Order: sequence, then C-alpha cells, then structure tokens
Amino acid sequence: MRIVVLAGGIGGAKFLTGVRAVARESGAEVTAVVNVGDDVTLHGLRICPDLDSVMYTLGGGADPERGWGRRGETWTVKEELAAYGAEPTWFGLGDRDIATHLVRTRMLDAGYPLSAVTEALSTRWQPGVRLLPATDDRAETHVVVEEQGKQRAVHFQEWWVRYRGELPAKRFVFVGAEASKPAAGVLDALGAADVILVAPSNPVVSIAPILAVGGIREALTAPVVGVSPIIGGAPVRGMADKCLATVGVECSAAGVGGLYGARSTGGLLDGWLVDPTDADVSIPGVTVRSHDLWMRDEASTAAIVRAALEVAGA
Amino acid sequence: MRIVVLAGGIGGAKFLTGVRAVARESGAEVTAVVNVGDDVTLHGLRICPDLDSVMYTLGGGADPERGWGRRGETWTVKEELAAYGAEPTWFGLGDRDIATHLVRTRMLDAGYPLSAVTEALSTRWQPGVRLLPATDDRAETHVVVEEQGKQRAVHFQEWWVRYRGELPAKRFVFVGAEASKPAAGVLDALGAADVILVAPSNPVVSIAPILAVGGIREALTAPVVGVSPIIGGAPVRGMADKCLATVGVECSAAGVGGLYGARSTGGLLDGWLVDPTDADVSIPGVTVRSHDLWMRDEASTAAIVRAALEVAGA
Repeated sequence: MRIVVLAGGIGGAKFLTGVRAVARESGAEVTAVVNVGDDVTLHGLRICPDLDSVMYTLGGGADPERGWGRRGETWTVKEELAAYGAEPTWFGLGDRDIATHLVRTRMLDAGYPLSAVTEALSTRWQPGVRLLPATDDRAETHVVVEEQGKQRAVHFQEWWVRYRGELPAKRFVFVGAEASKPAAGVLDALGAADVILVAPSNPVVSIAPILAVGGIREALTAPVVGVSPIIGGAPVRGMADKCLATVGVECSAAGVGGLYGARSTGGLLDGWLVDPTDADVSIPGVTVRSHDLWMRDEASTAAIVRAALEVAGA
Repeated sequence: MRIVVLAGGIGGAKFLTGVRAVARESGAEVTAVVNVGDDVTLHGLRICPDLDSVMYTLGGGADPERGWGRRGETWTVKEELAAYGAEPTWFGLGDRDIATHLVRTRMLDAGYPLSAVTEALSTRWQPGVRLLPATDDRAETHVVVEEQGKQRAVHFQEWWVRYRGELPAKRFVFVGAEASKPAAGVLDALGAADVILVAPSNPVVSIAPILAVGGIREALTAPVVGVSPIIGGAPVRGMADKCLATVGVECSAAGVGGLYGARSTGGLLDGWLVDPTDADVSIPGVTVRSHDLWMRDEASTAAIVRAALEVAGA
C-alpha cells in the first residue's frame, strides 16, 4: 500500500509518527508532502519550519515539550545576533537548528532544489517516511493585516511568531503559489497513492498552501480522507481558530470539513474523521466517521491513522 | 598625530592594544589596516579571521587563553554540522563567532563593501581604533603544497588550521591581490599618516598580503617603522618559521628586516625595532633600535609602541 500524507508542521509531524507506525506493521510506503508556505529567509538562512518539525520529530531530535525545534537546544547565536542589533530578534533561532539552516542554505545556493536538500538532510535523520516539500519553488504565505485602518502584508512567520497572531488578519495570500509547480516526486507519489490522508494540521495556513501549488489539487485522484484538527470547537494545538475566523469559517469539525468540501461538489474529501465529541457532523457526499482524535502517544496516533484508512476503505 | 598600523591577526591585535594605550595618552588617531588574505568562505559564511581577532581583542571579547575567537565560546553549531557530514570540519567555528559571520555575510550579500561591514560590526565592539580591511576586493592567500611529487594549491586556512603548516609549502600566492584596490579609507589614512608601524605579525602571510594590494606600497610615504616578530631566532607566536623557510628567509630579526628591506633600496623600512637579544642586527639604510619585545600586557606593549615611535622620530 502507498500512503501520501498532506502535512503541516507540529500536528503533521505528530500524526506522521502514527502513520509510520502503521506502515511498519503493514509494509506500506509513506510519502509526506509538507507545507513550505511558512518558509522564510532570516539572517541569510533559509528556514523551513514545517519540514524541520517533521524531520526532527520523526528523527527523534525534536524538543518534546516545546513542540518545535531541537531537543537540548541552546541560543548563543541568537543572543549574539541581538547584541549586534541584527533584526529580526523575534524568531526562535536555536544553535542546533542553525546548522540545519546552514547546510540547507549552502545547498540551495549551490543550485540544489529543496526536495534534494530535504533528502540530503534526511540521510542524517532517517525519518522512515519520504519527505517532500510541496514545491521546490518559492511560495510563501503572507498575511494582510490591518492597523488603524491601514493594510499591509507581513510574512506569515512575523504574524505568527512576532505578533502571536494578534494583529487583525484580513486575509492570507500564498505569494508565488499559483506559478509554482509540485516538487520533484510529488505528482508521482500522488499518482501512485492508494490513499491520501490530510493530517490534522492547520487547514488555512498548512494544508491550503499545499493545495495552492499548481497541479496538486488535480493530482488527488486516490481516495482522500481528512482528520479533523478541531475537537469540540477548539484547535487541538496552535491558532487555527484565528486563521479560520480570518477566512470566515466556523472553528469546528463541521466548519473545516465544509471548507475542504466533498469531492462530489468540487472539494477535496471522500472521508472525514472527527472526534466522538463531533460525531453528529454531517457533510453531504463525504463519509464521516468518529474516533478519539487526541494524539497522546504513538499508539493512540496509530489508532487514529488506522481509523482514517478504514474510512478510505483501504 | 596620526598613526597607521599594518597588522595581521593575533600578534597584530595584541600590538594594537599597546598602540591604543599610547594614543589615549597622546590624543593620537589610530587606523589599523588589517590583512584579509586569510579570509575564507566556509558553510556559506564569510569569515575574516584577522579582522575578527583585532575587533574581539580590542573590544574585550577575545578568548585570552586561545588567542583567537570569542571568550566563553561554545561549539554547538560546529558539532551539528559535523553530524550532517558537512565539510569542512577542521575549522574552529564557534557559536558566538558565527553570529559575526552571519551579520557580515548578510551585509556583503546585500552589497556593502567589507570596510562598511567592519565599521558596522565595530559599532558593537568599540575597538577604539579605526579598523580597515586592506582591500574590499577578494584577495586570498593560497599555498602551493607538494605531496608525492605533485603540487596543488590549498587555501591558507586549510594549510594553517587543517594541516598545522605541516604540508610542505612551495610558495604562497596572493590570489586576486594584483587586481585589488585598497579598501575605502586606506589610501586617505596612509596619505595623512605621521608614522606607519608594521606590527610584529607574520611577515609572509599577514604583512605581505597587505603590501600586495595594488597601490598600498606606493602610499607608504610617511616614516615606516617595523617591529620584529622574531626574537632570538624564534617567532614570538605562530608559525612564521615555516612561512619564512618557504620563502627562503632566515627566521631571525635580521632575516625579516632584510625581507622588508630599506626604503633607500626600494624596500619598506625606515626603522626596525628588535629585541635586545637581537641588538647586533644591522640593515644598511635602516635605523635599528632594540627594546624588550615581549608583549606581556598592555603596559609592556605600549612601551614597545613608544620605542617604535621614537625610532620614527615621531
């Protein structure tokens, strides 16, 4: 069996530990197509927060408390950059993390595509699943914010990390996405997939930027099952509520399911897995099933994945 | 009084603490023209070892034991780069140091000349003297080495740090020096100088690359007094002996004085300060004086500087 997972950062990374566990039992091949809309260049370093969260988590190098970045991280370079007055100072740039960014930046500068860089970095981390960026092109999520009646666009990371999502967002723009092409390997993986899972990641700023890459939506021909990132009206983690409010969608399993939409009406989903709290959700044309969606550990996460695969009839 | 000092890294940095002390007493203005032949790009970072040694030392941030790099340095990024298998692993790239290189690399990539970058970095370190790179152009010292009868060129840093100067060197090549121009401010400083001091730096790989920059030699119109880096036939520090052997010059105060040469015969020197151990040195056309040349602390180093200024009749 071939499974493709559309995934963002921390939630996606956690979900993928369950997918990997199921794949190990069944001998399935897993490809993760990861959001790159959060990627940003700071201090000359190319930073891919979602790819790194997935790579560190699957490779056993992630900080389990903080959820992002490296275990045992130190912050010397960040403090020194601040001592030089080098902006920005709001981004959590750890020393261990910087080595990843240095290797990546050097390879990108030498002309390698991000997919090749990710493969090279993965030889160290051995994530056990194939990691692919959604695109090798630049496609960055920007946020149009309004302050005192004036609108301006900020990079998603600035809105998310610097302003903790508290600047009123008018809309999200996936700069460059329309002209971008899927990264090397993405279309082949989607074409060969027996099932496509949508991880319980932020639908607006993790999954939507993947779907905005030219050609990806059309390539989702295998059964698509989504796992709700919302339980009982609240995001499991992160700030999906603020993002959903910006695009005018109710923060609920029904709201997100409706946002993705049924394949039969031009949407994404064949199946939608919700928490038992949300068992009454119904989306016309979509098979909705419920299962405990709290990803407590690898075993409970693997159980969620099995339930999602059952929805797909896989 | 305006003093210009031609300087390399560690020896030059130490010497400059004495020059600064004398200048503070006398109200003199000091400009250091620093070797950039050691500069190298590693892991995408532009590294200027001599400028940084001078800046850190004068700014109170240098490691006093090791002589190079930052006080309280840590090595997390270096270890992580090695874990990725990222070459080279032999260069001592500290976490604190990396912040300097990140700021510098970002400014250079944005189009600022190295002299402007150095000025910007100096706003933090307040070195108390004006620091100028010899050139804003690329002029790198390479070493032609011979192994099993075959010659190849390696960057000076590779020969110096990786091979500890133990690969047999045939000659040094200042790649790009001929076409390089003095950095912004260098010719003005030399033109306005009342005296030019040659720090007790490595004559072959610290001072010679400065003099190899197009137009610098011709601009040394003020009295030039050198301070011998050799005491009693041995370098005060570093591997000047190996470098001198490569260019066929005796490792002695007389040898180095002769290498620099008398102004009257097309050379560099009006005066040459040696240690009392070497008081019998004589170079036709050059005023040779002796003074204890061990730079034990700022006071003893300032005394050396005063003795050198006396030789210049300044």
